[in-house]
Amino acid sequence: MSGKERFIIPHRGTINKEDRQRLKGHRSAILWFTGLSGSGKSTLAHAVEERLFERGIHTYVLDGDNIRTGLNKDLGFSKEDREENIRRIGEVAKLFVDAGIIVLSAFISPYRKDREFVRNLVEDGEFIEIYVKCPLEVCEARDVKGLYKKAREGLIKNFTGIDDPYEEPLNPEIIVETDKEPLEESVGKIINYLVDRGYINSF
Amino acid sequence: MSGKERFIIPHRGTINKEDRQRLKGHRSAILWFTGLSGSGKSTLAHAVEERLFERGIHTYVLDGDNIRTGLNKDLGFSKEDREENIRRIGEVAKLFVDAGIIVLSAFISPYRKDREFVRNLVEDGEFIEIYVKCPLEVCEARDVKGLYKKAREGLIKNFTGIDDPYEEPLNPEIIVETDKEPLEESVGKIINYLVDRGYINSF
Repeated sequence: MSGKERFIIPHRGTINKEDRQRLKGHRSAILWFTGLSGSGKSTLAHAVEERLFERGIHTYVLDGDNIRTGLNKDLGFSKEDREENIRRIGEVAKLFVDAGIIVLSAFISPYRKDREFVRNLVEDGEFIEIYVKCPLEVCEARDVKGLYKKAREGLIKNFTGIDDPYEEPLNPEIIVETDKEPLEESVGKIINYLVDRGYINSF
Repeated sequence: MSGKERFIIPHRGTINKEDRQRLKGHRSAILWFTGLSGSGKSTLAHAVEERLFERGIHTYVLDGDNIRTGLNKDLGFSKEDREENIRRIGEVAKLFVDAGIIVLSAFISPYRKDREFVRNLVEDGEFIEIYVKCPLEVCEARDVKGLYKKAREGLIKNFTGIDDPYEEPLNPEIIVETDKEPLEESVGKIINYLVDRGYINSF
């Protein structure tokens, strides 16, 4: 066999998602946190990651910090750009699932249609929608980033909950209520879900 | 404050890149394969992944199969779209490095400027450029996908090597010559590079 011929057969990767999951010792999936600005998505996602990490689970968090400053820095906040924002995040999350990782995504993702798009990108059971539920008044009172104030003053347009809709999940896999339960309780719900359904092993 | 700036207030996760590398037992990096269509980039990337997997290394391959059909399916092959194609792949590869993975990227990536852009996205030593060198005549004779024929007939425009330039790497970390060396020799060069420089442990 000559050097030339070695490369002429189109080559499918021999290492696949199942191999990568086996190496990691757990299944992979998207934990898709959705909710209003200030509802606690990112805090919760990072807290869940920490607990998973302690168990030796391979994780990654996608949030505004690493997406809006990188892959999606060309996008704004119009309806079209928000849709493209979620589309790209969904496609990246799918790659992480294929890589065997439990990927945690923390974006408002206000539109049902966009979340369903991501759900349909991956296989059954690979998309776990977590509704981070918190009343607008509470989120606005927290106003961690001062964005609600700016939105009320008209300095920010198309702000979810103020002048742009948030479409609640109809059948989320998990609901956490960050104005009613302590952080550790919400984290526990999610970890239990993953254990109960065999994504990760119990201790 | 513009719409694009409003969400980038840093929220640091407690689990960082170093933690994830520690869990995985090796450093993370981008193995960036560049070369003409038909030079053997994807075959080589998957062969390297297989060898790394056998050693328990956590890897992922980005190539046309999972990128052009997903994240970048909105992009064509104009100069602008190719630049955006590589920009997005670079940003995704950076996320994988942050996740502690050795990510192998197999795209023609013909323009020096675009490859330098990706190199500058990550830290020193995290971008390993691998020039998959093979003469145009050999790639064209292989014509695995029948694309050179179509390009010669004018059915495909802006085809690298035919009517669009390929800019050779000036200082790639590794050069493999797929018309001269057997696949396993090229794979070995890359594995040795990773061992010698402490990315992964020797057995």
